[in-house]
Amino acid sequence: MKKFVNAVDTVLTESLDGFAAAHADIVQLGGGHKFVRRKSLKPGKVALLSGGGTGHEPLHAGFVGAGMLDAACPGQIFTSPTPDQMAEAMAEIDTGAGTLLIVKNYEGDLMNFEMAAEIAEGRVERVVVNDDLAVEDSLYTIGRRGVAGTLVVEKLVGAAAERGADLDALKALGEGVNAATRSMGVALTSCTVPAAGKPMFELGADEMEFGVGIHGEPGRRREKLRSADSIAEEIVAAIAGDLSLAKTPVLLFVNGFGGTPSMELYLMYNAARRMLEARGIVVARSLVGSYVTSLDMAGCSITVTALGDDLVALWDAPVHTAALRWGA
Amino acid sequence: MKKFVNAVDTVLTESLDGFAAAHADIVQLGGGHKFVRRKSLKPGKVALLSGGGTGHEPLHAGFVGAGMLDAACPGQIFTSPTPDQMAEAMAEIDTGAGTLLIVKNYEGDLMNFEMAAEIAEGRVERVVVNDDLAVEDSLYTIGRRGVAGTLVVEKLVGAAAERGADLDALKALGEGVNAATRSMGVALTSCTVPAAGKPMFELGADEMEFGVGIHGEPGRRREKLRSADSIAEEIVAAIAGDLSLAKTPVLLFVNGFGGTPSMELYLMYNAARRMLEARGIVVARSLVGSYVTSLDMAGCSITVTALGDDLVALWDAPVHTAALRWGA
Repeated sequence: MKKFVNAVDTVLTESLDGFAAAHADIVQLGGGHKFVRRKSLKPGKVALLSGGGTGHEPLHAGFVGAGMLDAACPGQIFTSPTPDQMAEAMAEIDTGAGTLLIVKNYEGDLMNFEMAAEIAEGRVERVVVNDDLAVEDSLYTIGRRGVAGTLVVEKLVGAAAERGADLDALKALGEGVNAATRSMGVALTSCTVPAAGKPMFELGADEMEFGVGIHGEPGRRREKLRSADSIAEEIVAAIAGDLSLAKTPVLLFVNGFGGTPSMELYLMYNAARRMLEARGIVVARSLVGSYVTSLDMAGCSITVTALGDDLVALWDAPVHTAALRWGA
Repeated sequence: MKKFVNAVDTVLTESLDGFAAAHADIVQLGGGHKFVRRKSLKPGKVALLSGGGTGHEPLHAGFVGAGMLDAACPGQIFTSPTPDQMAEAMAEIDTGAGTLLIVKNYEGDLMNFEMAAEIAEGRVERVVVNDDLAVEDSLYTIGRRGVAGTLVVEKLVGAAAERGADLDALKALGEGVNAATRSMGVALTSCTVPAAGKPMFELGADEMEFGVGIHGEPGRRREKLRSADSIAEEIVAAIAGDLSLAKTPVLLFVNGFGGTPSMELYLMYNAARRMLEARGIVVARSLVGSYVTSLDMAGCSITVTALGDDLVALWDAPVHTAALRWGA
């Protein structure tokens, strides 16, 4: 295993210490590394909490800050955080307007967030993100997996929360954004979890995993690597076939899995944009980068969200986090 | 070779098309993909131009925009741009106050930027960046190589140019920042240039290249992979031994080479910060991410810049580019 580590059992805490020190103007760490919270809370605002196994950075801790999340609970790598982590985070960030949980659709996350909600003092609602249309049911999921679209839900709900929307409105917004969002990804290599020390799965020198999950879960099929255009066309066709996109401008988000350089991501963005435009779909907003990753996996995903004017305004609203920052 | 490509000879142009489309609010492409320029020029401001071989994205095109560069010329991968690219860019961005070239210290770049300066109409000065203290003289360089410190020079000079500093002042500032900046990097894997289709060099399964260049040039030595702390300590010791850092707060910049996930970069940041603090050095500003890359190389570099109060203010000044954005 070739990684920058000191010991496999301190990778997460050392990385969180570095993250908190580098972004001390935006975040602070909870005791025992249980959560990363926004440095300055906004009293009366609905609190937004997300979290999940780590290895997907900058998701979620990189999205804590003004205009997005109030806190994120980092589990061990690819492992759900514990209910006590979430309960402590909720106790810290709920300023009286209740808490909205944004949960990716994995069994462990759902169960632990639910247990945490039961012991919380204030009112708690949740939005479950399941944007990955590659497969129904998967290693850790009943139904569709939650992947890169989680960023979009967190950004848009975060902007609305900042403007003072109440808990019910935010839950409805989050569910609406999730319903308007689809993603699918392709892996060119496996990732390596530090504690395992070897690749999670094997791919031949000319193979890709089409429809891969962000924990290396199997996708639709394993096949020979194809051209960027051919990959983009299949993903865009699947998304356009599953979402109602007629006359709706979209957000196009090309996301790297951690080991793919930005030159390739922009090339994929260019391909996906052409495929959308060939269908008469207008790309109104764009995001390209490695935001919802799988450690060092080479690969990328394409996410499309149908945007009405209201969602465009929420996307453009100021955000000030470690990984996403504009207008503030 | 496992990359998202359509054809090796269109990787660069397709990627630039995607970049320009995704960031159409910030940049526009010159004809024939010869340069990426800031969409809105600021008349009377000294024009800042950089460029070099591609494969280091987001450097340089990702730093074009308000508060940083006015244009960047992308060469083929790891290949200097041509003098006519630079001359066309200069003709487009010089609004009468002259042009400052920010050039990494590689023979091809120096020669081609000099030829371009000779045919330019307006006054042209240059700053040569040579922050890499790993080795003197290298495959493509006489003296020290220019690496991740180039971002720091571009940011600080860009902020001063935005405030109206003249050409002589900016040249002096750039040279001062370069003199106050040192970097060194470590590769855990090689990178793969698309046109070659195979890794540039071979590293054993337990080896690293200590002091590697951003084109895979050899460093100080090849050796067994060591702990993150041990790597950070050697680099910080080398930098602190070469820069005068007593009582000067610093910028600490941990840069990924493209294939290393942010969890490891923050862990390395945490290690380097501890090593600096153990020497009584205060880390006043931080940057962690993959900004000056080598395609898909796994590895990272550590850059330290000694910051006076004036440089802290320039670092904090608003910047609005594709890859670096704050305060605007």
